[in-house]
Amino acid sequence: MNVYGEHYRTIWLKENNPNVVQIIDQRHLPHKFVIEDLATVADVATAIKDMHVRGAGLIGAAAGYGMYIAALHAPKESFMESLAAAGEKLKATRPTAVNLAWAVQRQLDTVDAVAGGIDAKIQAARQTAQAIADEDADYCRRIGEHGVAIIEEISRRKNGDPVNILTHCNAGWLAFVDYGSATAPMYAAHDKGIKIHIWVDETRPRNQGARLTAWELGQHGVPHTVIADNVGGHLMQHGLVDLVITGTDRTTYTGDVGNKIGTYLKALAAHDNGVPFYTALPSSSFDWVMRDGLKEVPIEQRDGTEVRYIQGLHDGEIKQVLLTPEDSPAANYAFDITPARLVTGLITERGICEASEAGVLGLYPEKR
Amino acid sequence: MNVYGEHYRTIWLKENNPNVVQIIDQRHLPHKFVIEDLATVADVATAIKDMHVRGAGLIGAAAGYGMYIAALHAPKESFMESLAAAGEKLKATRPTAVNLAWAVQRQLDTVDAVAGGIDAKIQAARQTAQAIADEDADYCRRIGEHGVAIIEEISRRKNGDPVNILTHCNAGWLAFVDYGSATAPMYAAHDKGIKIHIWVDETRPRNQGARLTAWELGQHGVPHTVIADNVGGHLMQHGLVDLVITGTDRTTYTGDVGNKIGTYLKALAAHDNGVPFYTALPSSSFDWVMRDGLKEVPIEQRDGTEVRYIQGLHDGEIKQVLLTPEDSPAANYAFDITPARLVTGLITERGICEASEAGVLGLYPEKR
Repeated sequence: MNVYGEHYRTIWLKENNPNVVQIIDQRHLPHKFVIEDLATVADVATAIKDMHVRGAGLIGAAAGYGMYIAALHAPKESFMESLAAAGEKLKATRPTAVNLAWAVQRQLDTVDAVAGGIDAKIQAARQTAQAIADEDADYCRRIGEHGVAIIEEISRRKNGDPVNILTHCNAGWLAFVDYGSATAPMYAAHDKGIKIHIWVDETRPRNQGARLTAWELGQHGVPHTVIADNVGGHLMQHGLVDLVITGTDRTTYTGDVGNKIGTYLKALAAHDNGVPFYTALPSSSFDWVMRDGLKEVPIEQRDGTEVRYIQGLHDGEIKQVLLTPEDSPAANYAFDITPARLVTGLITERGICEASEAGVLGLYPEKR
Repeated sequence: MNVYGEHYRTIWLKENNPNVVQIIDQRHLPHKFVIEDLATVADVATAIKDMHVRGAGLIGAAAGYGMYIAALHAPKESFMESLAAAGEKLKATRPTAVNLAWAVQRQLDTVDAVAGGIDAKIQAARQTAQAIADEDADYCRRIGEHGVAIIEEISRRKNGDPVNILTHCNAGWLAFVDYGSATAPMYAAHDKGIKIHIWVDETRPRNQGARLTAWELGQHGVPHTVIADNVGGHLMQHGLVDLVITGTDRTTYTGDVGNKIGTYLKALAAHDNGVPFYTALPSSSFDWVMRDGLKEVPIEQRDGTEVRYIQGLHDGEIKQVLLTPEDSPAANYAFDITPARLVTGLITERGICEASEAGVLGLYPEKR
């Protein structure tokens, strides 16, 4: 999508130096637009762990490019071992993100299968990194094509009045390589001239909604309003939300949705008020092994500092301020699980299905 | 309760100058402890409107003292008219707070009924202001005595392991004159030696939990952990919450609880996970007229600036930082309604009752 009128992806190989990966360092958004060079696996691991890049698809793409960088620097005599070690390092950065392990494994399998020498393997790693990024963008575009039908139908029912869509966190193009998952149907609707308005949950503690979703919607000209995470229930009680669309970091093939902490609370409110609740995801975000999201999906606990401090713009500079008493501890669970029973449907690159084993396997019969 | 080891109420007449009211200016907590003088009705109105003081009981007490200040300055020839006008001014500051209108009306009725001259009326206004404050503290103390039984029983069931209690916003002693409503059972339990641990919702957008509840619990030595408002559902899904206790700004006599935005979401999660959800309130917070909270309780909309900016401590100074893109709008609904069906019970100064017309009128038969 566009940034100040110019098209960007969220990750790419540097022009004139394809040994270096470039990303948008999202820690500075929405206040500053910073491009960062990643030249080593350690750089990529730090960028993922410290959330210069974040979001299911983008983490996967970053891991893909990270494995390509690992291949560039792997010693000849222990090439595959070195690559495997890099993969372990990358996988350890964000335990909840299923795309991470998926991208690492795809690189290992591909490179391992290449018959030629080291150069051919490096070439394969580069092509695979590029393919992971391209597929991510393509899948998101298709999610938009499928999901827009839901918005169109509500728009017809409302005689063209704006369709109010609530979203949590950032499952926008900034979380993928392009288009986004939850935002793809919104961008598709907006581009078709369907009137929409997005309620953007600010998404504490890291405020990905207020910082990233609001910024990218604004750049694309989509009407939106930022709200505290506490507000969604009230809006639904008063008919001010027609539809919820969220992304996911990991969804079980049985339909349990692991997503940014607080998603479950919105799903409960949607259910209590008869508001349809959809999760949009490319198939790389499905977990094909876990049956019970609540019992099985590991939930990352991050440092309490992220709750106690917040950053924002003051006098033109990004500053961090302390929100709590100096000596009050804070806990920081990063994700929660929304049980399938609260999810109206899943929007994937293959179409829309019920959030259930039958629904998901109906779209992905090869996973049976 | 104590501040740095010294006992304070949240509002009082200035020593050596009882024509001036003093408050703790809560906007500076937890970083600075500031006492403010209020000498005019305009001072009091500003203090309520701009939330130097906030919370159901304290707003009522402030309105009571504000009416006393109004009496001090009311012209002889239009004494009652002037008082009534001051009452209107005070009532307009925070439309959702039922204690406000209640305290103003109590002052008007009392002063009107005094047979003597102006001096006697002023004296009555001062006594009434003092009585409203004293009753508030006494009612909260009694809420603690009744509510502690719920905590004691859970503690017994857990063989003395810490009872995990989640609370939203600040319904602590800072929201009343002393003890608090939601916190009164917690303080009572802690003082009896029952092990408790409080999950403190930070309560965006104004962060009364992170700023005020965490601070007052810390001052009293109660173990607590600050969490983002998004976290409660996850904690309940994993058995990490034994009990929810919130306060309320206005609860209908049918049991619908109007409280800080986001309370409804926590009540939904409590209901979904079989966690008891109680609301603690002095009877001054009951609305004896409204039947249907969702349809009838007015919900205050505050300025979006409170969502877009947040304040905290940076380099020893309280600073405000911008959280959103410069041009993204924000909406700021301050309260929501938790339907009675989601409320396990109400803890009042007279005891605990079901959140229903029968339950409430059983405790307050004179309101039938």
